[in-house]
Amino acid sequence: MDGIDHLADERNKAQFDVDAMKIVWAGSRHAFEVSDRISKLVAADPGFRKDNRPMLGRNELFKNTLRKAAYAWKRIIELHLSEEEAAKLRFYVDEPAYTDLHWGMFVPAIKGQGTEEQQQKWLPLAYKMQIIGCYGQTELGHGSNVQGLETTATFDPQTDEFVIHSPTLTSSKWWPGGLGKVSTHGVIYARLITDGRDHGVHGFIVQLRSLEDHSPLPGITVGDIGMKFGNGAYNTMDNGVLRFDHVRIPRDQMLMRVSQVTREGKYMQSDVPRQLVYGTMVYVRQTIVADASCALSRAVCIATRYSAVRRQFGSQDGGPESQVIDYKTQQNRLFPLLASAYAFRFVGEWLKWLYTDVTQRLQTNDFSTLPEAHACTAGLKSVTTTATADGIEECRKLCGGHGYLCTSGLPELFAVYVPACTYEGDNIVLLLQVARFLMKTVSQLGSGKKPVGTTSYMGQIEHLMQCRSNVQRAEDWLKPSAILEAFESRAARMSVACAQNLTKFTNPEEGFAELSADLVEAAVAHCQLIIVSKFIEKLLQDIPGKGVREQLEALCNIYALFLLHKHQGDFLSTGCITAKQASLANDQLRSLYSQVRPNAIALVDAFNYTDHFLGSILGCYDGNVYPKLYEAAWKDPLNDSVVPEGYHEYIRPLLKQNLRTARL
Amino acid sequence: MDGIDHLADERNKAQFDVDAMKIVWAGSRHAFEVSDRISKLVAADPGFRKDNRPMLGRNELFKNTLRKAAYAWKRIIELHLSEEEAAKLRFYVDEPAYTDLHWGMFVPAIKGQGTEEQQQKWLPLAYKMQIIGCYGQTELGHGSNVQGLETTATFDPQTDEFVIHSPTLTSSKWWPGGLGKVSTHGVIYARLITDGRDHGVHGFIVQLRSLEDHSPLPGITVGDIGMKFGNGAYNTMDNGVLRFDHVRIPRDQMLMRVSQVTREGKYMQSDVPRQLVYGTMVYVRQTIVADASCALSRAVCIATRYSAVRRQFGSQDGGPESQVIDYKTQQNRLFPLLASAYAFRFVGEWLKWLYTDVTQRLQTNDFSTLPEAHACTAGLKSVTTTATADGIEECRKLCGGHGYLCTSGLPELFAVYVPACTYEGDNIVLLLQVARFLMKTVSQLGSGKKPVGTTSYMGQIEHLMQCRSNVQRAEDWLKPSAILEAFESRAARMSVACAQNLTKFTNPEEGFAELSADLVEAAVAHCQLIIVSKFIEKLLQDIPGKGVREQLEALCNIYALFLLHKHQGDFLSTGCITAKQASLANDQLRSLYSQVRPNAIALVDAFNYTDHFLGSILGCYDGNVYPKLYEAAWKDPLNDSVVPEGYHEYIRPLLKQNLRTARL
Ligand SMILES: Cc1cc2nc3c(=O)[nH]c(=O)nc-3n(C[C@H](O)[C@H](O)[C@H](O)COP(=O)(O)OP(=O)(O)OC[C@H]3O[C@@H](n4cnc5c(N)ncnc54)[C@H](O)[C@@H]3O)c2cc1C
Ligand SMILES: Cc1cc2nc3c(=O)[nH]c(=O)nc-3n(C[C@H](O)[C@H](O)[C@H](O)COP(=O)(O)OP(=O)(O)OC[C@H]3O[C@@H](n4cnc5c(N)ncnc54)[C@H](O)[C@@H]3O)c2cc1C
Ligand SMILES: [Ca+2]
Repeated sequence: MDGIDHLADERNKAQFDVDAMKIVWAGSRHAFEVSDRISKLVAADPGFRKDNRPMLGRNELFKNTLRKAAYAWKRIIELHLSEEEAAKLRFYVDEPAYTDLHWGMFVPAIKGQGTEEQQQKWLPLAYKMQIIGCYGQTELGHGSNVQGLETTATFDPQTDEFVIHSPTLTSSKWWPGGLGKVSTHGVIYARLITDGRDHGVHGFIVQLRSLEDHSPLPGITVGDIGMKFGNGAYNTMDNGVLRFDHVRIPRDQMLMRVSQVTREGKYMQSDVPRQLVYGTMVYVRQTIVADASCALSRAVCIATRYSAVRRQFGSQDGGPESQVIDYKTQQNRLFPLLASAYAFRFVGEWLKWLYTDVTQRLQTNDFSTLPEAHACTAGLKSVTTTATADGIEECRKLCGGHGYLCTSGLPELFAVYVPACTYEGDNIVLLLQVARFLMKTVSQLGSGKKPVGTTSYMGQIEHLMQCRSNVQRAEDWLKPSAILEAFESRAARMSVACAQNLTKFTNPEEGFAELSADLVEAAVAHCQLIIVSKFIEKLLQDIPGKGVREQLEALCNIYALFLLHKHQGDFLSTGCITAKQASLANDQLRSLYSQVRPNAIALVDAFNYTDHFLGSILGCYDGNVYPKLYEAAWKDPLNDSVVPEGYHEYIRPLLKQNLRTARL
Repeated sequence: MDGIDHLADERNKAQFDVDAMKIVWAGSRHAFEVSDRISKLVAADPGFRKDNRPMLGRNELFKNTLRKAAYAWKRIIELHLSEEEAAKLRFYVDEPAYTDLHWGMFVPAIKGQGTEEQQQKWLPLAYKMQIIGCYGQTELGHGSNVQGLETTATFDPQTDEFVIHSPTLTSSKWWPGGLGKVSTHGVIYARLITDGRDHGVHGFIVQLRSLEDHSPLPGITVGDIGMKFGNGAYNTMDNGVLRFDHVRIPRDQMLMRVSQVTREGKYMQSDVPRQLVYGTMVYVRQTIVADASCALSRAVCIATRYSAVRRQFGSQDGGPESQVIDYKTQQNRLFPLLASAYAFRFVGEWLKWLYTDVTQRLQTNDFSTLPEAHACTAGLKSVTTTATADGIEECRKLCGGHGYLCTSGLPELFAVYVPACTYEGDNIVLLLQVARFLMKTVSQLGSGKKPVGTTSYMGQIEHLMQCRSNVQRAEDWLKPSAILEAFESRAARMSVACAQNLTKFTNPEEGFAELSADLVEAAVAHCQLIIVSKFIEKLLQDIPGKGVREQLEALCNIYALFLLHKHQGDFLSTGCITAKQASLANDQLRSLYSQVRPNAIALVDAFNYTDHFLGSILGCYDGNVYPKLYEAAWKDPLNDSVVPEGYHEYIRPLLKQNLRTARL
């Protein structure tokens, strides 16, 4: 607006090479370059404008999303973008749309669960978007418990077809994104029934709409489930409702990689191991962890920049007031979130590696790491999405009143992000799965079966049960070994305590149910340990760039010591550390904040977000917040007229005290 | 819908007299009767329909609010409602509107800060709504630090007027509710300048709009600041921006109760003590605490009823699945919020008493309890609003995917509630004020000055510094004395530890700044003690009704023991309790959950909310959730046509692969 960088002073303070940090954040120079190029391309294209979203009604909003999705696809084709680039483009367009489900769930489901033949038939159509698909699992009455789904797929041997049917109201499909108005096809989950026998839930490719005129096929009732949290936000998506009235599909549209129904109606398992499907889950959840670091870093970028712009109190002799980022309470809320964004980034990177590792092992029929990988991704999905949702809202509060404006970008970011705590597994349900795995691990400790992967610390259970932290001065908490030992012993002791308490119950399932709140806490402790230790491992790598390693070390320590303070009760009640040591950790944390403070703006610049992507006046790169806020206000539809619509009907009669005669 | 009460079984399980509990919740039989009558009146009147809000664009939404506000006023007059009844009616209409500021801030500001004469002139106009007023304090660049406001009111002795002016962009008024489009007047805060001297910030009554045609008066630029968090939510309110270009007002429109400017331009203090204005603050914050209990109870009511309807997993032999309310993790998240709603209700009730007490003392020039009352209301405002905002969001998550739908009522409840954490004092800034007061209290402990009111426990500081909890069995935690001692010693020790750490700094202000994060924690501990102890005091009163006291005792214990578990680190690090005792508290908590479980539905029925007020399909009284969700979906504007608008332009070209030629 005025061309001046109001945050230049802040940028000059930085004690590290921001460009090098950008590459660390992106994961590689290549990844950085792709991101940088595509994000600027999107930002510069008026076709991808998004600042008008809050003002649009549902129909306009949705139509606008349809336009953007088509336009994005057009640009992808015109520019001959690679798969990687296309995915980045969709990411930077930053608007939930049916394409998310098409590419993120429909295609992977066919890849993961379809036979070679099925893949050859359906994938080319999907890749060219000649069909558009959704993922139809959840029903009105059934979500977390997938095995409880009610939709039926009954084999009719006479016609060699499945009859898909919604027997009850609660069996209506409910939630699938892209289903409501767009998808021509769906992978639909239904109970497979052959010859009167129920074989449980299986996936089927079902055509939903005519490819000629888009009308729903006979027997299909389909629509949108209505508005969701926020303005704009996820309302660009047509989450849908769907009922089947005896809809027939050919037998070969059951996804048959793992189990089949023969022409005669015989149900059979293939020799492909069932576990293969877990691979897809690991994949999807890994992308969710990566998304968590994106969403959190975005909120943190906004709150950090604005905290350096915003001044409040502390004016001396009529000079400017203090920047709110200099208040320790502000730092104590903000910097751990900054550290978390980096922590989630690195654990996400590691999960990508884990996915490759698991996939390779699966191909050689090595299933040994699968339960651990599965538990670990479930837990990390839960812990990172919960922390991110809470963190976005904390960032909004850190911006005071102005954070409540849509132009801050934070309300919509929260509203659009928060379902990540629910979809792909409710976060509490997932932690209970982790806890179940941990209890199994503990129970096998004496048995000679060695705990693998992220549970391998349990191998030193005897040490972890009796060790005592030898931290004596605040600086001792900077040692990775001190942090690791504290987090490992906390996690181990909490799991062991749960396991011991479980033995007091005659019925183990009853015990598990009764102690489930404690079990969830043990699972969280385990997951936090993973994140801390992957951050520490990251620091063992070669990290080029002046001062970059030092900054990351400080952030790693902030992440760990902040958690330690927040969960002090765990560490103290299990006797892993003493009250004195906890207090030293807190002292160290404060001095880490001072260390990060001059680097804060540069640390969020390293995310390399464009102003378009951030979508926030408070977070704009140049920090020129106030003139922009002021200008934006006048664009609200309410300001189209000086005297508001409704004045004559509803305000004037009141002021003039002739309400009685007014028509209301 | 089908006339059946799907929650009848749950209601039959209740072990207490729900009608008696309704009266306890309302505060008195009279309060219950008024609430009950007015809420039903509002619910039955189609003029107050609110389920269409998410679908409306900003202009329609706002116009609809104008209509409702006028209609509400009409009904108030027609029905000859008392002040109490009128306030209840506005409450049950449940839609932020300019009237909130008119009645809640403009009128009280004139009452509190105006002279007798000014009150006589302005209040009758305001009472009849012949003028509509707002509260204009915050500016674009200045919020928390009221003393930093930039708007000026310069006395012109020549004309006997003040010249109100906005010297900078950042001095633009920004946020005042009702300002943007409706208010004819405002209490505007500005720096008083006489004869070149700045006397700091004072309030002025300024007319903003013509009473004839509603156009802004000369020199005034005014408009709406734009969309805020959520859909519907606070977007029914015209929070405004306002700039003054040398606007003149008569001298007698400065609010002169405490200080005056004479005809000659002399600045003078009246003999009315300044402290009187704190009375208003205590009043306003007390209403905020009461609102917290309303908002939280509403969310809890929705989540509790839905948790009894929702079933997931645990089906035995094809029978129905388990109600999710039976899962201990669900109880561990939900029941402490249920207990908090009751706790906030009772502490709010007590604050009402405190306000009366303070007012009476002020009238006899007794200022002794004022600092304590001020700190205590600031702290309770902060702690209850933070817990409520977080609690509403947790209730939303407790409803799984369906909680994300607008028809659950929870997204809008969150969006409309959450600014309570920011307005009337940012919650962190308020806690720092509490901490300051606590440090002062501790520093005076040896001096013979006895701590009063909610800090009187500090009088036994020696005991509290060395006592050890004598809890030996889980049931011992049911004793109020055990709970009180633990909470008192925790709060006292945290304050004393901060005070001791402060002495290590040569500059006390620097120390306060450096330790502010710890100080905030000490302030929270103090406030939680107040809430716990007021709940315990409530139980000392006569409480009629079968089983009512027992339920309240269980809720009080849940509230306290849940906090104890959550803040275990505080209790352990200060040595108030042992790890063993902490674990016993946790065991006791679990058995309290079992005790509350059969009463849960009845405990939320006791709030006596109509389905209209709840505004939630998930929380509807009869529990007939699924058919209602299904029906509501079809009302979304997206479902107006089967094939969506935009199909021909944006979907078909994609499927048909002729995007290149499409106009996008
Ligand atoms: C924005 C959004 C997009 C979605 N997109 C899709 C999609 O494309 N396709 C699709 O098929 N689905 C989709 N879903 C549905 C989503 O997958 C489910 O909402 C999710 O799986 C959670 O299930 P639920 O809603 O049944 O929650 P519930 O399981 O009903 O959860 C309610 C409460 O019960 C608790 N609970 C449940 N089971 C247990 C247990 N065993 N122990 C303890 N507590 C328990 C939960 O913790 C929660 O507090 C979407 C949902 C949303 C919000
Ligand atoms: C919905 C809504 C309605 C409103 N209605 C009105 C109205 O009718 N009239 C009116 O005049 N105003 C109104 N306001 C404005 C409101 O009163 C201010 O937003 C509020 O006082 C907070 O001030 P701020 O926005 O300046 O926050 P800031 O003070 O800028 O807060 C930003 C951050 O700085 C931190 N911070 C600030 N000072 C300190 C400190 N000393 N130490 C440590 N940390 C600090 C805060 O904790 C916060 O994290 C409204 C606001 C909202 C959101
Ligand atoms: Ca809208």
